Amino acid sequence: AELEDQIVRIGREHDIRIIGPNCVGVIDTHSHIDTFFLPEYRCGRPRASNVANISLVSQSGAFAAAISDWTSELGLGISKIISLGNKCDVDDDDLLRYLAQDDSTQVICFYTEGYDPGKGRSFFDTAKRVTPHKPVLVVKSGRGQRAKEAASSHTGSLAGSDRVVDAAYRQAGVIRADNFEQMFDMAKALAMQPPAKGNRVLMVTNGGGLGVMTTDALEALGLGIPHPSQDLQENLRKRLPAYCAVGNPIDVVGDTDASRYDIVFDEALKSDEYDIVVVGMLLQTPTLGMDVTNVIANHQKQSAIPFVVVAMGGAFTTKAGEIMELMGVPTYATGEKAALAAKALARYGEIKYGAEFRKSMRSDKP
Amino acid sequence: AELEDQIVRIGREHDIRIIGPNCVGVIDTHSHIDTFFLPEYRCGRPRASNVANISLVSQSGAFAAAISDWTSELGLGISKIISLGNKCDVDDDDLLRYLAQDDSTQVICFYTEGYDPGKGRSFFDTAKRVTPHKPVLVVKSGRGQRAKEAASSHTGSLAGSDRVVDAAYRQAGVIRADNFEQMFDMAKALAMQPPAKGNRVLMVTNGGGLGVMTTDALEALGLGIPHPSQDLQENLRKRLPAYCAVGNPIDVVGDTDASRYDIVFDEALKSDEYDIVVVGMLLQTPTLGMDVTNVIANHQKQSAIPFVVVAMGGAFTTKAGEIMELMGVPTYATGEKAALAAKALARYGEIKYGAEFRKSMRSDKP
Repeated sequence: AELEDQIVRIGREHDIRIIGPNCVGVIDTHSHIDTFFLPEYRCGRPRASNVANISLVSQSGAFAAAISDWTSELGLGISKIISLGNKCDVDDDDLLRYLAQDDSTQVICFYTEGYDPGKGRSFFDTAKRVTPHKPVLVVKSGRGQRAKEAASSHTGSLAGSDRVVDAAYRQAGVIRADNFEQMFDMAKALAMQPPAKGNRVLMVTNGGGLGVMTTDALEALGLGIPHPSQDLQENLRKRLPAYCAVGNPIDVVGDTDASRYDIVFDEALKSDEYDIVVVGMLLQTPTLGMDVTNVIANHQKQSAIPFVVVAMGGAFTTKAGEIMELMGVPTYATGEKAALAAKALARYGEIKYGAEFRKSMRSDKP
Repeated sequence: AELEDQIVRIGREHDIRIIGPNCVGVIDTHSHIDTFFLPEYRCGRPRASNVANISLVSQSGAFAAAISDWTSELGLGISKIISLGNKCDVDDDDLLRYLAQDDSTQVICFYTEGYDPGKGRSFFDTAKRVTPHKPVLVVKSGRGQRAKEAASSHTGSLAGSDRVVDAAYRQAGVIRADNFEQMFDMAKALAMQPPAKGNRVLMVTNGGGLGVMTTDALEALGLGIPHPSQDLQENLRKRLPAYCAVGNPIDVVGDTDASRYDIVFDEALKSDEYDIVVVGMLLQTPTLGMDVTNVIANHQKQSAIPFVVVAMGGAFTTKAGEIMELMGVPTYATGEKAALAAKALARYGEIKYGAEFRKSMRSDKP
């Protein structure tokens, strides 16, 4: 600690800011700075994407490394990974200010075990100013008593009352995730898609079971799943085969090709009855060609309404998901993940648009 | 429906049982029967594993196909996938009886949207007899009101009161999962590892943050995370470097090699203070060699205590996880998944051993 103080003093004298110590380094995929001391054959490095990029600040060095390695395989666009360590000089607040102004960062993610005494307030003040302009997500560990003890022994952090911290995040417009998987699932949607102007979700699917499971998840997350109006139902029935289910979910059924999706998006988007579209795209059936990805991407771009795709499967599906994401539409392996992504788009819309955000009731009926 | 009745009648006359209609087929990886009508270039087929195998019965054909495709990439051992469809003859109960006696099935999984009138009871009666001998898991959709409506329009199932169904599963010893990802994460652990004799979990990790996050998840799932006794702490401190944290989690720290894990397992297992071991194995640091997989597998086999591994990362880590699983120890990409696997092993221990299952209090202290 004496050596640490000396380093901070020297830094101050010469106007050099210091990140760490007790960290693994920083990676910037845009300037190609990489100070991670771990070899690439064990710890892969992420890449930037042409679509959108996420930056991560992690108090834990091991997590910074594991996530660098993990995202190197995910194909998720990463701008910066910063291992924060002991925060002898630079802290969460400094990095939040920096990343808020960084054009190559579309979404800011944090892993934190706690804030140093007196430092929490400045972070939340900064966050309040940043979040209407750029989404900020956090995984904050130490919810339970035992985890708090472990955090205190790990980084000496005082995890504080979880309820208080939770309320502070909420007030500051910071979206809290339960874990890394959820944080990156949400961050991907927020990086690629515009925030939703309201919480009315339309689910379109070619698998009935997937529709049921995803609806369950959407409902549990408190999103609106309004039925199509009588007008919209009639317009859809005129153009779809009689055995398609015109409700919410709309089931275009297992023998669909891309044209039925096209019809549904066409009618549903011009009806102005929905704020978010969740598309179930099961590609195990050969009648559904890859042109469905164009149909989805085009309707998303023309409408400027956020789309989320769920495609469950193996090698072909994974490839199709990668293509879908290169077109800018986030794609998930399960209905629950897609529902969470929709929730993030609605939640961030609420943060960004405030009173202008439309909230429909859960039980909305035609 | 008239044609359906005729088919059932012909089947009965000639003693032929019928699965379906409105299904995609059946796959049996042991006899190499594959009646799926979907092409392999879109819908991959799973393989059997030498370690342990899972069978799935799915009311939804699209899910049966998507999961066939998904598990073909996962490296999860699959014995049978059965698309159940309209249940004109063979139903959930018939298949549960069949799979209970099938030696190539170690764990039975169901996706169901509901039971036909009068058929629920026979399923639960059979399940009560099967579950002490073989784990049975279910994803039952239609928790929410909107999902129930969607299920009714999809398969005509009456989803029933979710609370009643939930209680029936619990009484019958059927483990209910929220979604497919969770069901297969739990099934993998139950297929590969013995059930736990109690709920006292020890977490060992080389990353402090991973220890904190996993402890959070274990605590939220109601598992016991008792501190090591004074004796055990002393024995560990004698043999580990002073900067390792000897609590629960035990943190062997980022510069560890396999030998520290060996010491921890050696002392902790002979202390008889734990029923399940969760091992955090972050491989981004080159000091930790692949020999750690041997150390883990050997201690698991010698102790007959269930082990679960969490290894977060990219290409190298994925490969190491595959090797770990070929040695019979289930490996997960996040602490939350590993915690859920531990929960499944404890829950199934409770189902199997009843009153003999040891329940320690959550707040257990040394």
